[in-house]
Amino acid sequence: MAETIKLAHGFGGRLTQELLDELIVPALAGGGGHAPTLDAAVLPDLQPPVVVSTDAFTVTPRFFPGGDIGKLAVCGTVNDVAMMGARPRYFALSLIIEEGLPLEELRRIVASLGETARAAGVAIVTGDTKVVEAGAADGIFIVTTGFGTREFTVGPERIQPGDLILISGTIADHGAAILNARERLGFAGSLASDCAPLWELASATARAAGDRLHALRDPTRGGLAATLNEFARDTGLTFTISERALPLSPETAAFLEALGLDPLPMANEGKCLLLVSPAGAEAALSAARRDPFGKDAAVIGRVESGSGRGRVVLETAIGTRRVVEMPLEAGLPRIC
Amino acid sequence: MAETIKLAHGFGGRLTQELLDELIVPALAGGGGHAPTLDAAVLPDLQPPVVVSTDAFTVTPRFFPGGDIGKLAVCGTVNDVAMMGARPRYFALSLIIEEGLPLEELRRIVASLGETARAAGVAIVTGDTKVVEAGAADGIFIVTTGFGTREFTVGPERIQPGDLILISGTIADHGAAILNARERLGFAGSLASDCAPLWELASATARAAGDRLHALRDPTRGGLAATLNEFARDTGLTFTISERALPLSPETAAFLEALGLDPLPMANEGKCLLLVSPAGAEAALSAARRDPFGKDAAVIGRVESGSGRGRVVLETAIGTRRVVEMPLEAGLPRIC
Repeated sequence: MAETIKLAHGFGGRLTQELLDELIVPALAGGGGHAPTLDAAVLPDLQPPVVVSTDAFTVTPRFFPGGDIGKLAVCGTVNDVAMMGARPRYFALSLIIEEGLPLEELRRIVASLGETARAAGVAIVTGDTKVVEAGAADGIFIVTTGFGTREFTVGPERIQPGDLILISGTIADHGAAILNARERLGFAGSLASDCAPLWELASATARAAGDRLHALRDPTRGGLAATLNEFARDTGLTFTISERALPLSPETAAFLEALGLDPLPMANEGKCLLLVSPAGAEAALSAARRDPFGKDAAVIGRVESGSGRGRVVLETAIGTRRVVEMPLEAGLPRIC
Repeated sequence: MAETIKLAHGFGGRLTQELLDELIVPALAGGGGHAPTLDAAVLPDLQPPVVVSTDAFTVTPRFFPGGDIGKLAVCGTVNDVAMMGARPRYFALSLIIEEGLPLEELRRIVASLGETARAAGVAIVTGDTKVVEAGAADGIFIVTTGFGTREFTVGPERIQPGDLILISGTIADHGAAILNARERLGFAGSLASDCAPLWELASATARAAGDRLHALRDPTRGGLAATLNEFARDTGLTFTISERALPLSPETAAFLEALGLDPLPMANEGKCLLLVSPAGAEAALSAARRDPFGKDAAVIGRVESGSGRGRVVLETAIGTRRVVEMPLEAGLPRIC
């Protein structure tokens, strides 16, 4: 392992996994007999069952086409809770603010935060505000912790060979929009983050597909490449996706092509992967497409038993097959 | 209001209150019909009742006599939950790490975090790790969100005229230790933070005093001055404390005297105020003194009906009385 923290430790790929598995998780395990889980956890012993997720938001720039750090801080955590089958209900909010931040900017950020929370039906019940000296943070960091009550059960342990892989819409939009805004690459037009709360879409597909909906996950940091590799690692199955089937907006496709970037490791902030048995796929797809954030939902692949060593395979547009690796240093820092 | 964020917005005193009341809370209110509360909140509709608190830890230096940022990040949130009468049980953990932080330092911090959590009986159930570029944060910021199940009911609404004011031990130790370590003032010796988890002490005093224990609060940022002023504002009562009765360690007393600093607005991280009816005070005091973190517990004052406009009064060692104001720009940034 490297001797200092590198930016790639935060990209959501292999170095992040290594940092968590080798250094952080072992040090934290054991309290009350529990080991920490990624993304979200179910709190034992409560009725109804409570799902908890926490996320820090450090995105730069703080305002970008399609959203801002406040909206993102709500959507990101709402979605982590929703992907566990839980209705997001309560939020705890922590603000770390740099001395010198214009109050007008703070006002816009908290207004967006409040508005997005109200729209998502989430109550912000408690919070904390810290101020650090100029130079000790970058404007503002926001940490949200969300609590939801579980309404249906999904998880990678339910994924089976034969399941279809669905995505709720176009991919790579958030990563592309942030990269464009950050580097002032001039691809203005309608390149915009997909940042959106997904509980309604998730619950509608679950109602439509019932227990044929096996797993949900939002492919944020590390994009589809990271999320599918996590599924592959957890299940030992092969996840095959078709390049032709991947929904891409014309703007994002043009932007990525111009820069020679792969959409698979690019972050999404308003999309989810749905793993559904074939008998439930049509119902799930129709339900997703009726949601305002799911109109471009598509079947993009299938799960196969493979060799027993989990992997992700892309069938390219020209008919070849290549393994999609867990991203190592892909993407950008501070996309969320 | 000022037009940019100032350090004093984070001191826990009047400017913090103004920022929260005028800018942050109004923007966030309304989701699910709830307005955010400070410090901690009870989540409705769950059985048993769940108390939640979130806090960001930005302390500098990250290692100091008596603790480090990892230990503090556990104790601070354990205590916010405990002060609501809830047994701390689960934690969500967010790490914001600056590129270049030595892994050895991160290892020490998470080891301390895990050890303190296990000692406090708390399970870290989920988390998030973000990395920001060198210069975009200061080493590491830690946000902990704690969940506890409520075992007894306390709150400022239960405080009555005649109640005695108890403190669980010596005051101002954390603020003094951080100031000394930060400024390299050379008062080495045994000047040390009091950083400690207080659930056992809180529950022992509650068992001993029963419903005669009316309120608990840990006087962290802004110290006794801020906490007592919050009680005064919430109740409209007068909180009178005696300077002679305030427990001070010889080291902290010498340090503060040399610098001409008032102990009242200095932070504590392992102490609580207990508001107890006279009939319960002896039982609460004995119970607190039996706890390893309560051996210097003392009665330091009483609650009076006063003029109906809440205020805090200090009876000085020379027999005069002065009003203790809510701290405005007292203290230091980044003591927690």
